[in-house]
Amino acid sequence: MRDNVINLQVVLGNGDVIKTGSRARKSAAGYDLTRLTIGSEGTLGIITEVTLRLQKLPQHSVVAMCHFKTIKDAADVAIATMLSGIQVSRMELLDEVQVRAINIANEKHLPETPTLMFEFIGTEAYAREQVLLIQKIVSEHNGSNFVFVEDPDAKEELWKIRKGALWACLAMAPNYEAMITDVCVPLSRLAECISKSKELLDASPMLCAVISHAGDGNFHTIILFDPNNEDHQCEAERLNHLMVKIALSMEGTCTGEHGVGTGKMKYLEEELGMGALRTMKRIKSVLDPNNIMNPGKLIPPHVCL
Amino acid sequence: MRDNVINLQVVLGNGDVIKTGSRARKSAAGYDLTRLTIGSEGTLGIITEVTLRLQKLPQHSVVAMCHFKTIKDAADVAIATMLSGIQVSRMELLDEVQVRAINIANEKHLPETPTLMFEFIGTEAYAREQVLLIQKIVSEHNGSNFVFVEDPDAKEELWKIRKGALWACLAMAPNYEAMITDVCVPLSRLAECISKSKELLDASPMLCAVISHAGDGNFHTIILFDPNNEDHQCEAERLNHLMVKIALSMEGTCTGEHGVGTGKMKYLEEELGMGALRTMKRIKSVLDPNNIMNPGKLIPPHVCL
Repeated sequence: MRDNVINLQVVLGNGDVIKTGSRARKSAAGYDLTRLTIGSEGTLGIITEVTLRLQKLPQHSVVAMCHFKTIKDAADVAIATMLSGIQVSRMELLDEVQVRAINIANEKHLPETPTLMFEFIGTEAYAREQVLLIQKIVSEHNGSNFVFVEDPDAKEELWKIRKGALWACLAMAPNYEAMITDVCVPLSRLAECISKSKELLDASPMLCAVISHAGDGNFHTIILFDPNNEDHQCEAERLNHLMVKIALSMEGTCTGEHGVGTGKMKYLEEELGMGALRTMKRIKSVLDPNNIMNPGKLIPPHVCL
Repeated sequence: MRDNVINLQVVLGNGDVIKTGSRARKSAAGYDLTRLTIGSEGTLGIITEVTLRLQKLPQHSVVAMCHFKTIKDAADVAIATMLSGIQVSRMELLDEVQVRAINIANEKHLPETPTLMFEFIGTEAYAREQVLLIQKIVSEHNGSNFVFVEDPDAKEELWKIRKGALWACLAMAPNYEAMITDVCVPLSRLAECISKSKELLDASPMLCAVISHAGDGNFHTIILFDPNNEDHQCEAERLNHLMVKIALSMEGTCTGEHGVGTGKMKYLEEELGMGALRTMKRIKSVLDPNNIMNPGKLIPPHVCL
């Protein structure tokens, strides 16, 4: 998403209303205030206007799905796909717990094993060509039940599976809440990271599902817990903590998409070092000297100027 | 290029050596110091390490070229190409002066009219399919002499034309220097901007050539001038000034790629407004309080904290 943002209008703590850039899609005119603001979680200012780059709807698209014996196989296919240069517009990995949740919620009968879903776009011939290339990679990694659809209704039906993933999980345990965590690692480490994380999750008594934007090396874990059970909360925190630690040990980030807030503050020093955090704190201090923009978020309290 | 930068190591004015991010290709962990640093022209710190994202070499590529009666036709094709969703990996526009320079320098006999060059990448079938789609758009805009090549040597030979453009210009006037300016406008305004700029250039006695990264709405003008002739320098400055003004009037930027330095400082207020400049100055002041990092560049001197 952030790559499609051309410029922003931002209200700063001192009341200044700034425009972060022109409408050109490329600029070298000064500091990149657009990207500085995106992901700053309201700590530098409030975004009041966003100029987005529009994308042409693709002429044709194909949606495909296949299943694997292990999550490592599925992640290996994601890595091989990206390394091969095949253009996938979406590549989503669901673990067997997630697929089970989807089966229950939607009365489906999908094989309850790690699953990859793909979307290919372009011309009709090209999208089909990419499907054939993927099919070969999938078969080299013990993938099975490869299906692909081109009919609009069938495509929508297949994507519904992914789109409803979180709700399907929540439906499995109606009085539970979900702690959703997300980490991201260099693509080359995805299979290792996701396998290690799964070992950890499988050894826990908690109900946990994994969904990954696999082409980015990014994955989310949904940990279902009883909000009235302190042991549950503690165990969910422990799992989250260990998954972040695994990702950081692989030169990854404690959050690929969800942001820092207060929950992930404690990992920033290990990920970025104190120098980077001091730099962030300095920027915050000069742009919001009265600390009125979402105070207490993102920058750990122990960082000094 | 900046989209392929994953993280940086930067030495700040206070001696801090910071890492701007992890090796993950996506992160929401704090302010985007990577993008803040890129394009800051050394005014915030010195980049000492860059981690880049590698791209797979395409399986196949096709290079194509065609010619137009007017520069507006050529720019219109660039716009239509981007709007159509055709994937071009390169799309370069050369005006008739640039083509003449290339003919002289390389003993070529290309038609001395506005020219577009394309590169298409992907699978063999896909790259060819895109060529056919482009060919149709080109013929709808009075394009002629459409050629495309797939042989590696022929492709290299064709791209040499573009790569040697600046040297070809300089060779036309051996004792002259080149003032190279660059602006960028929203793609929808490219044809209008480039046509207006060409009118201005054509009415000047100076020798000027235009080269455009047309898919981005970005173009460069090479103005050849005698460094010992004050009138020449003055006229080159006047042309540069007016081209920037045209781009700004179309919600563009005074520089798409080359940066601000000192030459384009005076346009930043019109482009971004005083609020954005004050914000930049504040960031500069807090990250480099002794003003030792490339002082006097990028932020206009009249901007107050």
